[in-house]
Amino acid sequence: MAGNSFGKLFKLTTFGESHGPAIGGIIDGCPAGIVLDLDKIQDDLNKRKPGQSAIVTQRKEPDTVVFLSGIFEGVTTGTPIGFTIENANQKSKDYSHIKDAFRPSHADYTYSEKYGVRDYRGGGRSSARETACRVVGGAIAKQVIKDIKIVAFTSSVGELKLEKEFAELDFSLIESNPVRCPDPETATKMENYIKQIRAEGDTVGGTVKCIIKNVPIGLGEPVFDKLHATLGQAMLSINAVKGFEIGSGFDGTKLKGSEHNDLFNQDGTTKTNLSGGIQGGISNGMDIYFNVAFKPVATIMQKQETINSKGELVEMQGKGRHDPCVVPRAIPIVEAMAALVLADFWLQNKTSKI
Amino acid sequence: MAGNSFGKLFKLTTFGESHGPAIGGIIDGCPAGIVLDLDKIQDDLNKRKPGQSAIVTQRKEPDTVVFLSGIFEGVTTGTPIGFTIENANQKSKDYSHIKDAFRPSHADYTYSEKYGVRDYRGGGRSSARETACRVVGGAIAKQVIKDIKIVAFTSSVGELKLEKEFAELDFSLIESNPVRCPDPETATKMENYIKQIRAEGDTVGGTVKCIIKNVPIGLGEPVFDKLHATLGQAMLSINAVKGFEIGSGFDGTKLKGSEHNDLFNQDGTTKTNLSGGIQGGISNGMDIYFNVAFKPVATIMQKQETINSKGELVEMQGKGRHDPCVVPRAIPIVEAMAALVLADFWLQNKTSKI
Amino acid sequence: MAGNSFGKLFKLTTFGESHGPAIGGIIDGCPAGIVLDLDKIQDDLNKRKPGQSAIVTQRKEPDTVVFLSGIFEGVTTGTPIGFTIENANQKSKDYSHIKDAFRPSHADYTYSEKYGVRDYRGGGRSSARETACRVVGGAIAKQVIKDIKIVAFTSSVGELKLEKEFAELDFSLIESNPVRCPDPETATKMENYIKQIRAEGDTVGGTVKCIIKNVPIGLGEPVFDKLHATLGQAMLSINAVKGFEIGSGFDGTKLKGSEHNDLFNQDGTTKTNLSGGIQGGISNGMDIYFNVAFKPVATIMQKQETINSKGELVEMQGKGRHDPCVVPRAIPIVEAMAALVLADFWLQNKTSKI
Amino acid sequence: MAGNSFGKLFKLTTFGESHGPAIGGIIDGCPAGIVLDLDKIQDDLNKRKPGQSAIVTQRKEPDTVVFLSGIFEGVTTGTPIGFTIENANQKSKDYSHIKDAFRPSHADYTYSEKYGVRDYRGGGRSSARETACRVVGGAIAKQVIKDIKIVAFTSSVGELKLEKEFAELDFSLIESNPVRCPDPETATKMENYIKQIRAEGDTVGGTVKCIIKNVPIGLGEPVFDKLHATLGQAMLSINAVKGFEIGSGFDGTKLKGSEHNDLFNQDGTTKTNLSGGIQGGISNGMDIYFNVAFKPVATIMQKQETINSKGELVEMQGKGRHDPCVVPRAIPIVEAMAALVLADFWLQNKTSKI
Repeated sequence: MAGNSFGKLFKLTTFGESHGPAIGGIIDGCPAGIVLDLDKIQDDLNKRKPGQSAIVTQRKEPDTVVFLSGIFEGVTTGTPIGFTIENANQKSKDYSHIKDAFRPSHADYTYSEKYGVRDYRGGGRSSARETACRVVGGAIAKQVIKDIKIVAFTSSVGELKLEKEFAELDFSLIESNPVRCPDPETATKMENYIKQIRAEGDTVGGTVKCIIKNVPIGLGEPVFDKLHATLGQAMLSINAVKGFEIGSGFDGTKLKGSEHNDLFNQDGTTKTNLSGGIQGGISNGMDIYFNVAFKPVATIMQKQETINSKGELVEMQGKGRHDPCVVPRAIPIVEAMAALVLADFWLQNKTSKI
Repeated sequence: MAGNSFGKLFKLTTFGESHGPAIGGIIDGCPAGIVLDLDKIQDDLNKRKPGQSAIVTQRKEPDTVVFLSGIFEGVTTGTPIGFTIENANQKSKDYSHIKDAFRPSHADYTYSEKYGVRDYRGGGRSSARETACRVVGGAIAKQVIKDIKIVAFTSSVGELKLEKEFAELDFSLIESNPVRCPDPETATKMENYIKQIRAEGDTVGGTVKCIIKNVPIGLGEPVFDKLHATLGQAMLSINAVKGFEIGSGFDGTKLKGSEHNDLFNQDGTTKTNLSGGIQGGISNGMDIYFNVAFKPVATIMQKQETINSKGELVEMQGKGRHDPCVVPRAIPIVEAMAALVLADFWLQNKTSKI
Repeated sequence: MAGNSFGKLFKLTTFGESHGPAIGGIIDGCPAGIVLDLDKIQDDLNKRKPGQSAIVTQRKEPDTVVFLSGIFEGVTTGTPIGFTIENANQKSKDYSHIKDAFRPSHADYTYSEKYGVRDYRGGGRSSARETACRVVGGAIAKQVIKDIKIVAFTSSVGELKLEKEFAELDFSLIESNPVRCPDPETATKMENYIKQIRAEGDTVGGTVKCIIKNVPIGLGEPVFDKLHATLGQAMLSINAVKGFEIGSGFDGTKLKGSEHNDLFNQDGTTKTNLSGGIQGGISNGMDIYFNVAFKPVATIMQKQETINSKGELVEMQGKGRHDPCVVPRAIPIVEAMAALVLADFWLQNKTSKI
Repeated sequence: MAGNSFGKLFKLTTFGESHGPAIGGIIDGCPAGIVLDLDKIQDDLNKRKPGQSAIVTQRKEPDTVVFLSGIFEGVTTGTPIGFTIENANQKSKDYSHIKDAFRPSHADYTYSEKYGVRDYRGGGRSSARETACRVVGGAIAKQVIKDIKIVAFTSSVGELKLEKEFAELDFSLIESNPVRCPDPETATKMENYIKQIRAEGDTVGGTVKCIIKNVPIGLGEPVFDKLHATLGQAMLSINAVKGFEIGSGFDGTKLKGSEHNDLFNQDGTTKTNLSGGIQGGISNGMDIYFNVAFKPVATIMQKQETINSKGELVEMQGKGRHDPCVVPRAIPIVEAMAALVLADFWLQNKTSKI
């Protein structure tokens, strides 16, 4: 099944390795008649691209998306939208030292064992470069469900945590700092910490919080394709993600039912929202919110002992230009995946009743 | 798409409402030639069924699975395995008080809004009764991947947490107590706490930890269908689940890469296992372990204000026989979903190379 | 993938062998809010069931469908519709002579080779008994797309062919004779021929023509899932079918473009309809019509030489009660498959534009 | 669902319109470890491309495939194979006369009605240009199942029919003439007839026969995904196809069971092969053979009356460079679709037993 497609009705299939000529994808199932703002798609790509600030990888990739089909005179035609993004800055030589060696906590070893062959020039298919295609897909999905607002931001870096509730935050400040944290004071601390980590040749993890507003009631499908289950899969499929929690999440396990239940207002809204906008797997119209846990990037600029394909112990040191913390660049990816999920369920919901 | 199927090659589709004549399902894609131990399937169902101990719902359901196809002379034939489980103890009258009212934090409201009609006699399709079919599917999946060992247990109830590492635990003690916690001392505390909660007419949440051993290298598909992403969807699709974390999970976000990386031994195993047995979405042969967060059950035996379908405020009190804490009965469901995921990827992996 | 599901949004999955306790299925994706006429479903099953006339198999099967879910107070709820049909009249002993022998032109040999095991008591999964579940699914599909009219009838038996154009026929006469041919004179000849064939212990093939009226414009999906391609798969998946042609079909290959093109009327209808109601894979609102070729049933009451599982030559003679010509009983199956296709594309088309 | 993907495990998704910058596709699920002969892929494309002989369209398209991923050092890596084919010769102005008018028996009208918008510069997505991507997919599929031999040829043009049995034919002669008919005498007649038709500004239909040899026993999945049902869908999805028949096909409907049954030899082969190499939907190891019916191309160089989008009657005459008979260029497409079907079932069959 190969796993390179996401979605059932609004379906993104991607291809491409970090060191091939290009990556790209096909969006199949995008409804006809959507007037696309192509600049917004490139804007989202720009938020993800390397080299945008001092705290992310200094690789330079223009990351310009080229659309090959499915759009005519600026409007979607209902036919598949094919697109490519050139790999402009491959620098294969940077990776020659890892031809035979397996980088710790990367996919090198598992891919080699699974497939018997591997593009050793970099992460190949396992590289987060692939997520650029998700951002394209998500940017189009956002225009399908344009009344729904999806906002993600950095909520922790290492031990540094944004303590405020999301209702207290001013989302317009997210893009005011390179960390993408809407609280400027916390953002500065995070930024300094990331710089310090980078200076150590190390990396650090963090968390992203995502809020989705104006969700129509009824999105999500019962039983296996619950809205939050699919959101969970979407987020956990992003490189370096190790955890997902929605609504009250892990903290909610400590509560009693009498504390956790969201009592109704007469209009069907609820007084509290520990459910996180989803009940029985279906959106109830309240804000959806969830947290995503990112582990520290595995590629560090310190010496590590590892093994090569012959099972010999070798020493390895990360080279090239890597992110000391993926979280800031992961923000547009989290938003993109959320948009893909919502657009897909929005289409699915069109068939739920006669 | 409707969401009632799980898996791509080993595919379970379920049907049935809590108050219809029966629930059931079809397992399509089970390979031919598996000598099935039918008693083990019923054993798993018995672990899930109501009325098994003093701390779970006292509903009585025999939950006997009847196989209708796909098995001949005890061996799977490669044709779809159809099965049913009778709803012996429906007690529809217990639910008459909720015909028009929406129970807080249940799926009553969202189903009504999504479908326009609703089987008001209980949770209907949103009831956890449906999970009995998952247990049947999982019990067969376990026999497909019979060298893989899946063990789940209760790791917290409310604030009470099992503090030991899983390597220190004796899994043979899990079934020695009704809480299904392998540490007898903690189990007793948890049991007493659940009884106290029940006496208050309240409910409480908790967490389940699941360990999977002897996983072959290579399971999972890159990009969207990463092994842990699919495990995450599987777990988040279980009723009342609000969170999932694998390996180092949320705590891992606080670490540095130099602390988090799992260095290799010469045989390809790793010295540490913060990755949780999965790298790049593909199993690396180390133990897989993850945590699942269950919120407190929404049905409480206390009075709550709610609304009915006319938007009127009404008072409601849970009746019938409900679980004060779902976690003990969720153990076989977590195991079943894990087995379904692994059997599916095990089959998928048969096609990954020539 | 196992092949036991049909449809993408309106999806039927079936299970069951001819000699197990029951067959059945799940319809997933049926929209909520359809007031079902359950009698019509049973009527369709009765048209297919054995023993209904002198020219079909004299097996007796009540073929009563039991619905287990998805319908509440006569209305579909949007949840999966599970159903079973008991195998009341299995007569396993009739088949004991074929335990080891492979019946010529049956699936015995290919199933044995593919799966390594086989339910030798009859056709098992390859038996046309499975099509009863398709009739149930199709009967529900018809009620989803209730303005579309689907009519199938016997258009040839052996060399005997109904020569009239379908526009000249009175479809109300189809059920007036056991052959299900709307031309009484031709029907009588066909009936007599089938009786003669049966007296010889032989079987004969034939063709079914199906007409679909009142099809909305826009059903079908471009490229691989063209409406007629999916209808073709649907028909070719019916037991004993060897051919499918739509519109002008094989005869149309002899024409010139200037003869074959369907010129438009000003209202978008066409003056001729050699396209058969589909252009570019999408319905154009004109009548859809197609022919389906059924080979003669393989089970004959004459002695045939064959081989057993050891590769030994053995002699075999059909026993039991088989159809001398499947075409009359295939009529409701053709209609059911057409209905499944149309209901599925009708749902899919709800998502084609914004 | 949008219909732009074919296959379940070996899955081709295509994109692209006839007048966009490029067409292309993604092959997902191709096993790792296949040493690809890229020249063979281009050879197949060359057999399909326009301008190759005097009897096909004189458009000039180099049709050079560019691979963007999934292949490393000439070997498939198990990751998705992305590819593009530039639309070098779009000549949009050729189509300006049809901006508002609906060409008879084309997809113009149905696409407009279905999607509300349409790329009026040509067939757009409905153009047979899209089949170039199928040829790429099929050419790779052939290398997955490299022991299986697939041969297609022109078996009729208009009333001119190749009368010989396929066993009597020398397939090495297929490429000896532009019609792709392995009987030189018949080929010459066909070629002359096509030239005459072209001189009349008309078009003509025809049939293709396809033979598949060395098929392993066991390919195909029971019930809905029978091998011949999927082959039927594959063929009927090709532009201009109106019919499909396998083995004895429509002629077989006239036979008796005693004439039609294929009796076994002791080694499991059969003395006759009216089944066409498939029994119960599963290959039995005998030659698979089938016929595909192509209607005459709708674009003719004669004046035709038609309507425009306002429902006005307008006169139209085909311009540009079109095929007088599609059959010769359809040969590689039929082969490609057959290869896609077989590679997919070959992979599926790897999971059929333990």
